[in-house]
Amino acid sequence: MKMTTIHILFIFSLLSSISLYSHASVNDFCVADLKGTDSPSGYNCKPVSSVTADDFVFSGLVAGDTNNTFKAALTSAFVTDFPGVNGLGVSAARLDIAKGGSIPMHTHPGATELLIMVEGEITAGFMTPTALYSKTLKPGDVMVFPQGQLHFQVNSGKTKATAFLAFSSANPGAQLLDLLLFGNGLSSQIVAETTFLDVSQVKKLKARFGGKN
Amino acid sequence: MKMTTIHILFIFSLLSSISLYSHASVNDFCVADLKGTDSPSGYNCKPVSSVTADDFVFSGLVAGDTNNTFKAALTSAFVTDFPGVNGLGVSAARLDIAKGGSIPMHTHPGATELLIMVEGEITAGFMTPTALYSKTLKPGDVMVFPQGQLHFQVNSGKTKATAFLAFSSANPGAQLLDLLLFGNGLSSQIVAETTFLDVSQVKKLKARFGGKN
Amino acid sequence: MKMTTIHILFIFSLLSSISLYSHASVNDFCVADLKGTDSPSGYNCKPVSSVTADDFVFSGLVAGDTNNTFKAALTSAFVTDFPGVNGLGVSAARLDIAKGGSIPMHTHPGATELLIMVEGEITAGFMTPTALYSKTLKPGDVMVFPQGQLHFQVNSGKTKATAFLAFSSANPGAQLLDLLLFGNGLSSQIVAETTFLDVSQVKKLKARFGGKN
Amino acid sequence: MKMTTIHILFIFSLLSSISLYSHASVNDFCVADLKGTDSPSGYNCKPVSSVTADDFVFSGLVAGDTNNTFKAALTSAFVTDFPGVNGLGVSAARLDIAKGGSIPMHTHPGATELLIMVEGEITAGFMTPTALYSKTLKPGDVMVFPQGQLHFQVNSGKTKATAFLAFSSANPGAQLLDLLLFGNGLSSQIVAETTFLDVSQVKKLKARFGGKN
Amino acid sequence: MKMTTIHILFIFSLLSSISLYSHASVNDFCVADLKGTDSPSGYNCKPVSSVTADDFVFSGLVAGDTNNTFKAALTSAFVTDFPGVNGLGVSAARLDIAKGGSIPMHTHPGATELLIMVEGEITAGFMTPTALYSKTLKPGDVMVFPQGQLHFQVNSGKTKATAFLAFSSANPGAQLLDLLLFGNGLSSQIVAETTFLDVSQVKKLKARFGGKN
Amino acid sequence: MKMTTIHILFIFSLLSSISLYSHASVNDFCVADLKGTDSPSGYNCKPVSSVTADDFVFSGLVAGDTNNTFKAALTSAFVTDFPGVNGLGVSAARLDIAKGGSIPMHTHPGATELLIMVEGEITAGFMTPTALYSKTLKPGDVMVFPQGQLHFQVNSGKTKATAFLAFSSANPGAQLLDLLLFGNGLSSQIVAETTFLDVSQVKKLKARFGGKN
Repeated sequence: MKMTTIHILFIFSLLSSISLYSHASVNDFCVADLKGTDSPSGYNCKPVSSVTADDFVFSGLVAGDTNNTFKAALTSAFVTDFPGVNGLGVSAARLDIAKGGSIPMHTHPGATELLIMVEGEITAGFMTPTALYSKTLKPGDVMVFPQGQLHFQVNSGKTKATAFLAFSSANPGAQLLDLLLFGNGLSSQIVAETTFLDVSQVKKLKARFGGKN
Repeated sequence: MKMTTIHILFIFSLLSSISLYSHASVNDFCVADLKGTDSPSGYNCKPVSSVTADDFVFSGLVAGDTNNTFKAALTSAFVTDFPGVNGLGVSAARLDIAKGGSIPMHTHPGATELLIMVEGEITAGFMTPTALYSKTLKPGDVMVFPQGQLHFQVNSGKTKATAFLAFSSANPGAQLLDLLLFGNGLSSQIVAETTFLDVSQVKKLKARFGGKN
Repeated sequence: MKMTTIHILFIFSLLSSISLYSHASVNDFCVADLKGTDSPSGYNCKPVSSVTADDFVFSGLVAGDTNNTFKAALTSAFVTDFPGVNGLGVSAARLDIAKGGSIPMHTHPGATELLIMVEGEITAGFMTPTALYSKTLKPGDVMVFPQGQLHFQVNSGKTKATAFLAFSSANPGAQLLDLLLFGNGLSSQIVAETTFLDVSQVKKLKARFGGKN
Repeated sequence: MKMTTIHILFIFSLLSSISLYSHASVNDFCVADLKGTDSPSGYNCKPVSSVTADDFVFSGLVAGDTNNTFKAALTSAFVTDFPGVNGLGVSAARLDIAKGGSIPMHTHPGATELLIMVEGEITAGFMTPTALYSKTLKPGDVMVFPQGQLHFQVNSGKTKATAFLAFSSANPGAQLLDLLLFGNGLSSQIVAETTFLDVSQVKKLKARFGGKN
Repeated sequence: MKMTTIHILFIFSLLSSISLYSHASVNDFCVADLKGTDSPSGYNCKPVSSVTADDFVFSGLVAGDTNNTFKAALTSAFVTDFPGVNGLGVSAARLDIAKGGSIPMHTHPGATELLIMVEGEITAGFMTPTALYSKTLKPGDVMVFPQGQLHFQVNSGKTKATAFLAFSSANPGAQLLDLLLFGNGLSSQIVAETTFLDVSQVKKLKARFGGKN
Repeated sequence: MKMTTIHILFIFSLLSSISLYSHASVNDFCVADLKGTDSPSGYNCKPVSSVTADDFVFSGLVAGDTNNTFKAALTSAFVTDFPGVNGLGVSAARLDIAKGGSIPMHTHPGATELLIMVEGEITAGFMTPTALYSKTLKPGDVMVFPQGQLHFQVNSGKTKATAFLAFSSANPGAQLLDLLLFGNGLSSQIVAETTFLDVSQVKKLKARFGGKN
C-alpha cells in the first residue's frame, strides 16, 4: 500500500467526521421528478444519487416550424422540458418569427421575460393602463417585459427574426389573450360585456380559436 | 368539412408546436391535495386535470354562532377549508362578535391580518414593547395587524359587530394567548415564573382553559 | 418615593441592559413614507417615532359611485391609500356593481385576489389557455383569482352587488384589458395583428378608450 | 518596467473589458447605512467603497449583567448593532441566566430562534393551541423555536446558564409578553376582558411594568 | 363637442373614481435610479413619470474583444448596465470565447446561470464535493449551473464559440476564483494553508493576478 | 359533574366552532420527514400528530475529533441531522480547530454564515474580486460571511479554538474548494486551464484529494 493511498483514506475518514461536507449536495439543486407531485415551490426532487449531467442540459432549443397562422414558433426549455431548472427560478425559450408573423398579445402570470435579439428585427412592447413601452429591436438588443404585463412581438423587418427568451421562473406559463377570450366556453355575451367588443366580433374569433357559446 | 373546422384544426396543430402555450396552466395555481403531504411552501398540488371551478370557491363564510364564552365566532376560509388558496399567500375569515363579546388576545405567527369592518363597532389594537396602536373601528374602516403581533378585538358598541378578515398567508394559524398559557401541561410554577402572574391566577385559568399541572 | 416607582425604574434599567427588548419594534412593520422613495420591496419606512395608530387604519372603504359606463366602482385600500400595509403583503378594496354592470376583463400582475361576496349576485371567473373557471357567487361565497390571471366580475342578479376584495400584495396594481389595448398610442394596425380583432373594431374601441393611431 | 508588471496591467485591462467581473461585489452584501432609511427588505446600503472588514465583525457578544428582576441578560448582535448582517437573514445574541432566573414568555414576530446551549441547564419550550413542546437542555443541545411562537427559557439548574442564540432574520425583534400586556396604556378593563385575567392581577402587573389606565 | 369626446371624458372621470386603475403602474416595475441608494431588494426606483421605453431596452449585447489572456469576453446586461431589470430577478450576458480560450473557474454567489449555446463548442461543468456534472455543448443546447456552484466554460472546438447567458438575479455578481485567491492582500502563507497549494505556486499566481503579501 | 368540568367542555365546544383556533399548528412548523421526498422549499412534513419536543432538539453539538489532516472538525445540526429546522431558514454547527489547524477555503452556495467565537483565536475572512475582508477574532466576536462567498478560518492562536456557526438556511451545504477542484474526474488539463495552476500542482493535489484523470 502506497503512502498516497493511505493519505487519501485518511482524508476521507476525516471528511466523514466533518459532516459539513458529507451531504453538501442535497439542497444545492433539486432536479424535478416529473412523475412525482408538484408543490407551490416546484416539483419534488429526484434522488441526488440518480442525477446525472444530462439533467442539467436541455438539447433542442432550435428553430421551430413557423408554417402556421402566426408565422411564428416558440420552443421552450421550461421545467417540464428541462427538469434541472426546477426550483432555480430561471428558464429559457427560443422565438422564431417568419417575415410578416408575430407573437400575439399574451402574459406570463408568474414571470418576467427577457428577450435577447439574435437575427432580424422585432417590434415589441408592453402596456400599462397609463403608458405604452414599445421599441423596434435589432441584434444585440435586450428587452425586459416585467412580470404579468400584457406584451407582443411583431416581426417588423424584411427577413425572419430570431430571439432567445429567458424567464424569471422555472415554469413561466403563458397566456395567449385570444385563447383566454375566445378559446373556451365563456359565453359570447359575457365576453362582449366585459371587453366592450361587438358580439359579432367575439363570435367571429370564437370560431377561429375554438370557443363555444 | 367546413373551412372553419379546418381553420381550428390548423390552429391547434400550431399550438401544440408552440409548446409555450401547451402547459401554461401547470404552475399558475396549485390547488391543495389535502390528503397528500404538506411542504414548507404549502400542500402538494392536486393534478390540474381534476381541478374544477369549485376548487376556487369556498361557500360558507357566514355568521358563526356567538353563543359561547367569548360571545364571538370566527369562521375561516383557510387552505384546509379552501384548497384553492394553497401557495397563493392569502386567505379569509369572517368575525362575528355579539354585544359584550370579544376576540381575546392572540397572534398569527406567520401572517399579517387585515380587518374590514362591516357592521357595528369594534375596538381593536396591537401592542409592541414600546407602544399601543389601538382604534375604535366603524363600518368602512380597515385595520392592519402586522405579522406576529399580539392583538385583540372587542365589541365596544351596542349591537353585534361583523367584520371580514384577510390574511397574508394561505394558512395563518392563530394562537389564542389563554390556550398557550393555560391550556396545556406547562406547570403552573413555570407559567407564573415566566409571566409574573400569581400562581393562584394561573391555576384559576388553567381550570378554565383545560390545562394541567 | 414609593416602592412601586422604584420597582419600575429598576425594571426599565434592566430592560435597557437587555438590548433584545429595546429596539423590538424597528422591523415588525414599515409604514410607507409615501413622499420618500420606493424600492422593489416597497416604500422606504417612515420613522417609528412618528407612527401612530392612524397609520394602521384606513377609513373610507365605502360604496363607490356606480353612475358610470361600467355601472361599477372599485374603492381601494392599497399602500398608496393606506401606508400601514407597506411591506406586509396584503391590501383590500371594495367592489360595488349596479344592476347590469360589470368589472371588465383585467389582471393584477403581481397579486392574487380574493373576492368575499356580501350582497347580490356576481358571476365571476378566470381563464387559462385550456380552461374556464367560472361560478355564480352569492353572499357567503369566497372566490380566489390566482396571481396574474385574466378575470372578470359581472352582476348577474337583479339588484346591486357588493363584495370585498383582498390581495396578496400591498400594491396589487390592476390592468384593465381595454385600457391596455385601446387606451394608448399602439397603432391600430399592430393591435389588430396581435389580437386578430378587425381593424374597424380596434378603431371603434380606441375612440371609446382614448387611444390614438 | 518588468515583465510581471506588464503582465498584471494586461490582466487588468482584460478584466475591465470583461464587465462581468468589474462590479461583482455590488450586491453580494448590503452593509446597513444605519443613518439612512429603512425599507421592508432592510436598511439601504452603505457604499461598497466605504465598507471595511470591521463592518462584518461585531465585538461584544459577552456575558451581560444578570443583576436584575429577571436574573437574566440578553446581549444582541442584530442589524442595529451589527450593520454587516443587513439583508442576509441571520443575526445572533447571547443569553445569560443566573441561578433562579429566566427569560419570560416572549415572541419574535418575524424570526425563528435557534438556542445553542453552552453552560448550565435551561428548561425551554414553546406552545401551540394544542401542544406544549418543552425540554431540559444541557451543553451540546440545540433547540429551535419556530417563527412567531410564544416561548420561554428558565434556568432549571444549580449554576448560571449560558447559551448563544441565532435568528433567521437580521432584525428579529422581541416581544416580551408582560410589556405587551402591562407596559402601555391599554386599559386594565380591556386587558382583563381579552385575557380573562382578574382586573386586580392586571393592575398589579401594570404597576410593575409601567402600564397606565 | 362631439359625442366621442364626451364619451372619452366620461370614461376618464369614471376611471379616476375607480381608484384601482389609477395607480396601477406604481409597483409593476421599479426601474433603478442608479444614482440613488441600493437596498437588499435592489436599487430604489426612478419615478414612473420619467420612465421611458428605453429603460426597458439594453443595446450592446454584442461580441466582446477576446484578445486577452483568457481569449474570452463577457458582455453583461446586469442592473448596473440595464436599470429596467431592477427588482425583476433576471439579467443577461453574452459570452465569446476564441479558439483555445476559456472562462476560468468562478461562482455567482447569488444567482443560477443558464447558458444558451449559439455557435461553436463549449465544454462546461460544475462540481459538488461528491460529483462532477460536465458536458460538451453544441448550438441548441442549454445548460444550467445552480446558484453559487463553482463552474467553468472551455472552448473545446476548432472555431470561436458564442453563448448567451441568463441569470436568476438582476445583479448576479461573479467571483473569478483566481482573483479571490491571488488578486488581493491575503498572505501567501494563508492561501497555501487553506488551499493546500504549494507556496511557490501561490506566489507565481499572485504575481500574475496582482496579489500582494 | 363539577362546574369546572362543565365550563371546560363548554370552552372546547366553542373552540371547535371557532375554526380559527382548531388547526392553528398545521403550518407554524414543518418537521422534515427525512424518509419522504424533498422539494425546492425543503422536505415534506411529518404529520403534526407524530411530532414531539424531541423533533425540535438536537443533541450532540459537541467537540469533534480534530485528529485529521486539517486539524479541524465541523459538527453540524442541519436539517438532515435536525429535522425540526426544516423550512425555518436557520441551522447551526460547531467548529473546533486544533492549534495549527484550519478550515480550508470553501463556500456555502445557499447560505450566509455567522461565526460566534467561544475560545481561542481564529483569523477568518472572505474575498470578493476587488477586496479582502479579514479579521483576527477572539471570544465575544461575531463575524458574518455573506451567502456564497469563498471564505476560510485559520487557528492563529496558541491553543485550540472553538466557535459556533449559524446559517441562514436549514441546509447550507458546503463546498470545500479542494474537493471541487481535485476530488473528482475533471481532467487535470481542464483544471489547470481554468485555474492557471501548473499541471504538476493539479496532479499533486488530485493524488491527495482522490481525483482522477
